[in-house]
Amino acid sequence: MGYELSTMHYELDVVGIGNAIVDVLAQADDAFLAAHRLEKGAMTLVDAARADALYAAMPPGVEASGGSAANTMTGIASLGGRAAYIGKVRDDQLGGVFRHDIRAAGVRFDTPPAADGPATARCLIVVTPDAQRTMQTYLGASVELTADDVPAALIASAQVTYLEGYLWDRPTAMAAFLRASALAHASGRKVALTLSDPFCVERHRASFLDLVAEHIDVLFANEREIVALYEADGFDAALQRVRGHCEVVALTRSEKGSVVASDGEVHVIDAAPVAEVVDTTGAGDLYAAGFLYGLTHGRGLAACGRIASVCAAEVIGHVGARPRVRLAELVGELPAG
Amino acid sequence: MGYELSTMHYELDVVGIGNAIVDVLAQADDAFLAAHRLEKGAMTLVDAARADALYAAMPPGVEASGGSAANTMTGIASLGGRAAYIGKVRDDQLGGVFRHDIRAAGVRFDTPPAADGPATARCLIVVTPDAQRTMQTYLGASVELTADDVPAALIASAQVTYLEGYLWDRPTAMAAFLRASALAHASGRKVALTLSDPFCVERHRASFLDLVAEHIDVLFANEREIVALYEADGFDAALQRVRGHCEVVALTRSEKGSVVASDGEVHVIDAAPVAEVVDTTGAGDLYAAGFLYGLTHGRGLAACGRIASVCAAEVIGHVGARPRVRLAELVGELPAG
Repeated sequence: MGYELSTMHYELDVVGIGNAIVDVLAQADDAFLAAHRLEKGAMTLVDAARADALYAAMPPGVEASGGSAANTMTGIASLGGRAAYIGKVRDDQLGGVFRHDIRAAGVRFDTPPAADGPATARCLIVVTPDAQRTMQTYLGASVELTADDVPAALIASAQVTYLEGYLWDRPTAMAAFLRASALAHASGRKVALTLSDPFCVERHRASFLDLVAEHIDVLFANEREIVALYEADGFDAALQRVRGHCEVVALTRSEKGSVVASDGEVHVIDAAPVAEVVDTTGAGDLYAAGFLYGLTHGRGLAACGRIASVCAAEVIGHVGARPRVRLAELVGELPAG
Repeated sequence: MGYELSTMHYELDVVGIGNAIVDVLAQADDAFLAAHRLEKGAMTLVDAARADALYAAMPPGVEASGGSAANTMTGIASLGGRAAYIGKVRDDQLGGVFRHDIRAAGVRFDTPPAADGPATARCLIVVTPDAQRTMQTYLGASVELTADDVPAALIASAQVTYLEGYLWDRPTAMAAFLRASALAHASGRKVALTLSDPFCVERHRASFLDLVAEHIDVLFANEREIVALYEADGFDAALQRVRGHCEVVALTRSEKGSVVASDGEVHVIDAAPVAEVVDTTGAGDLYAAGFLYGLTHGRGLAACGRIASVCAAEVIGHVGARPRVRLAELVGELPAG
């Protein structure tokens, strides 16, 4: 075990900060993506007019609470961990749905909703027959999150503060992000980041490089994201670069599994088996949930990676980005370590 | 073939009228039903305060458009039929979801949303591990439907006008119901009714008995509903009573299949096979879809029952009350007749 968090008592394991979003999931074929010029597998930001036009063209859908860091926090709660979430909705119907679902999942969520301004954020997710998800996000009220929404006591009470790269897309959310990071470190806590999306990395490469080197203790990224961050010549080249940059990294590679590393250790973790990959939405989010749960419960890096893989496998076996079963039961069967 | 609709050209096969509702589906165990005194398998009407309290207690859910007759119309469209829907939402987020989903399913829907008053109706559906659904409905804007929302030309253009028994719970919706029925008959069209729910039948037995005898050409009911209607001593006794009361009846009996009958015919139809019964929400709605599709496409009563069974089997194989696949493809494999 090369990396351990302090063993002092904390009120919370992890507090996540992110864009509070309700997902609209619909199944369509590749021709639909082509007809609407959607970038397969990516998350694209859209304005209200484009969101309305796309929604009108989409097949019937189902609505379910989402948001990357919010999904991760529900995963930690499902594992039996103590999680809180900070994110902004409006006081509208979908905002009520978001609040209900995350609280019902056992996550503490007290960010006050916006009383006016744009509606609660929606992410239009098209799931193709190959289980890939393509996301068009209207950020709406979620970007009204400000540094004032980050309670110092809440950050100080958590072992880890977990941040979405997506927050970096708007200046006020970026300020919330930086305040949370500074508060966490001032209290001797750790800060974790997910790079979120390769296009998000392209948009913010310079500041992400600086962040990772200066402010982030635990980094999550998938292969495309980490390669994009370092403009590296392939996965291994990116791995060599990132190892010197933050204490712990967890790099996911879809069916190829993941690589978790610290200065002293590198573990190559197999993907957990899945009967049928139905919808990859939430795979990275639930991987992060498993990993952070392990890390905040004294597990070694390899065990963290194995827990993470099991959580990711559960969520890609069905439509939707949050777990359908008690993850604690799935993970209880893993060997300790 | 004992029963045939006219073969003249119609613009529409079926127009459905019902409570326009968005479902909130969550999975919970029987202890949850007991703790909240929910009547298993039934639909109970609740006010806004009770709906809010129940929602706060419910596990995380998914939202999907529902409403009994609306589900049926989407089934007809999925079979390749021409369907329209009349029902009332508000101009809020869930109203927008309802409108999007039914139109995206290929159903004509032009009822203007209410600009004020109660929110779009919600049905809180608890699905227990035995796949039974227990429904608590807050009718909200749906009961703002009035006779003015029933366009005479639309009713006249459809071979069959299909009505929900649920409409009978509110006087203005009842007026819409009666206007639609009178318009349909004045144009030489047929009127179909589903009894909807045994408690709905208990609430309105006297007027339902009168309706069935005087105004309904095609009646749908499940075993509990038809027994409740006639206060009969079992299924067969109810069957004997109803045969004299309307031209065509289709009585569903869950895994025991269904019985379809006219004055001259009685057919006993097996349930179609289902790999795993996941959620029975929408079973009756989709049975009606298949039956009405057959009836409006010149099929005999037995064939109508077989199509209906296939449609019901599809919808109980997954969570949610609307079909996930093109029903036309499933039904295309059935023998003609």
